[in-house]
Amino acid sequence: MQKFANDPSNMVNESIRGFVKCYPDIVTYTESERVLKSTAAQGKGRVGIATGGGFGHDPAFIGYIGQNMVDTVAAGDIFMTPSIEDYCIAFRHADAGEGVACLYGNYERDIASVEKAIEIVKQEGIVVKCVVAKDDVALSDPDKRRGSAGEILMWKVGGAAASMGYDLDNVIRVVQKAVDNTKSISVGLASCIIPMVGRPNYLIEVGTMEIGVGHHGTSSLDTCKLRTADETVDIMLDSILADMPLGEGEQVAVLVSGLGNTMLMELHILFSRIYDVLKEKNIKIHRSYVGNYFTALDMMGASISVMKLDDELKQMMDVPVYTAAFNHFHIKK
Amino acid sequence: MQKFANDPSNMVNESIRGFVKCYPDIVTYTESERVLKSTAAQGKGRVGIATGGGFGHDPAFIGYIGQNMVDTVAAGDIFMTPSIEDYCIAFRHADAGEGVACLYGNYERDIASVEKAIEIVKQEGIVVKCVVAKDDVALSDPDKRRGSAGEILMWKVGGAAASMGYDLDNVIRVVQKAVDNTKSISVGLASCIIPMVGRPNYLIEVGTMEIGVGHHGTSSLDTCKLRTADETVDIMLDSILADMPLGEGEQVAVLVSGLGNTMLMELHILFSRIYDVLKEKNIKIHRSYVGNYFTALDMMGASISVMKLDDELKQMMDVPVYTAAFNHFHIKK
Repeated sequence: MQKFANDPSNMVNESIRGFVKCYPDIVTYTESERVLKSTAAQGKGRVGIATGGGFGHDPAFIGYIGQNMVDTVAAGDIFMTPSIEDYCIAFRHADAGEGVACLYGNYERDIASVEKAIEIVKQEGIVVKCVVAKDDVALSDPDKRRGSAGEILMWKVGGAAASMGYDLDNVIRVVQKAVDNTKSISVGLASCIIPMVGRPNYLIEVGTMEIGVGHHGTSSLDTCKLRTADETVDIMLDSILADMPLGEGEQVAVLVSGLGNTMLMELHILFSRIYDVLKEKNIKIHRSYVGNYFTALDMMGASISVMKLDDELKQMMDVPVYTAAFNHFHIKK
Repeated sequence: MQKFANDPSNMVNESIRGFVKCYPDIVTYTESERVLKSTAAQGKGRVGIATGGGFGHDPAFIGYIGQNMVDTVAAGDIFMTPSIEDYCIAFRHADAGEGVACLYGNYERDIASVEKAIEIVKQEGIVVKCVVAKDDVALSDPDKRRGSAGEILMWKVGGAAASMGYDLDNVIRVVQKAVDNTKSISVGLASCIIPMVGRPNYLIEVGTMEIGVGHHGTSSLDTCKLRTADETVDIMLDSILADMPLGEGEQVAVLVSGLGNTMLMELHILFSRIYDVLKEKNIKIHRSYVGNYFTALDMMGASISVMKLDDELKQMMDVPVYTAAFNHFHIKK
């Protein structure tokens, strides 16, 4: 395995330690090394934003901790749910007396852990309400859909709403709208290596690609010939728009994420086509993000997420944000 | 080649187009599609910051255009120098009557192009002065040393000095100090694929690594057994500190960059060790950056850059900056 590692079974802990050392102005530990919190004072009167999930999606989830975005993250092992206790710790640190919005992805084991943790902290007087992201349109049954890179847009909206003083019910309402309006699809060109295993999880043959691949190194079972970048975007956007039609004049946020071993150069080529296709349909891109935002270890491939915006969601997307992985603002000239 | 591409020979142009579509608030075209400029008004009384170089180092160079950093970039083909005319265009757009600092890397063909371009714009009344980065300590002769990820710290300092109203001679002075105080070293774990070629440039055998590898897909000829992450950092830091001794109590900026196909998780593990080694020596990290800042297409590997700081350089590093690839600032609470 050509990786920078000391002990492959301890990469998550070592990486988190390096992350905290790198961003002392943004994050800090809690009593658990697997739960990080924002150094930005939340102050009373603000809803806390918590999330959690398996590791291996760098910079998700810990990279989104910071001002006006996520307050606390519980981090699991690679592709594994965090412990119930770590979710409890994340909720306790996110709470400032106004309740906690736990915004996470639709994975069975995460749901089980989160629900148990909510029961526990409820007895301590902490109110936690949830929104579960189901943005990945690869599966046709909406209830079975996974959360994927669209979660980043969900955290953005949630963090903005909390920073604007929305109460818990209103944070949940606007985040649920964000999730309902966000659709994603991924394409894989090569599988990932789980460090403890040391070899690719399965094989995507050279000259083929997998449509609707997930973020956990398992095959989508939908293999086809490798297409050009433009053709690939067209297939991906067709899936998204079939699920969420967009009319002329509508506005969207678009997020293109590499899955790991895909060059930024390629991602910008994908975005260029997305821009052209949407422009042709007279759909305006209000905010765009291209980079490695939500990866699957060293998988080769990319995801596209589209969020349909109304005035309220636009306002949320425009709130400045400062985290390790996601920034926007303007310096006064 | 498992890549998102339309025409492998046209990836640079297509990627730049996507980049400009993604960041309309940060960059815009000039009359050349290969020269981008910052949308941030430079205003009279400010020195312009220009740079240029071959493509394939995403997000370098175009990702560093923006507020308080780089004003104009001339982009060449993959690993090729930009044209003389494109350097001229970059200088003209960077100039606001106070001269231009051209801050670039020590590559023979770039130097030849830049020098000819300077002669041309001189006849138009534009004064261009240069600093050439030679931060890569892999080569022992200081004059032959390449510019590498340390260039990012050079642009940071130059953009900050210009934003503070330094005149051209003082911008050049402080940037030269930054370059003299910056040392980098890279380690490669796998070579890159040049898209037009479609296969790896050369082979780094599994279980080995290359110390002092360059950013252009050629072998360093210094192959050794693959070490643990900590051992690798120790080898890299030894090279840097042998060249630039650091005394107790000194302060530094540290930048760890992936070369392409190396996971962020691994980079944070490397940084964790750097932090510990420097702490042990009582050297304080004033600013730290870990990510894919200066890549070599899809090479597997990482670079470490260390800049020794005095009070003036610290001040420069603390100036807020907003670009596609490099940000820091604080939102008022």
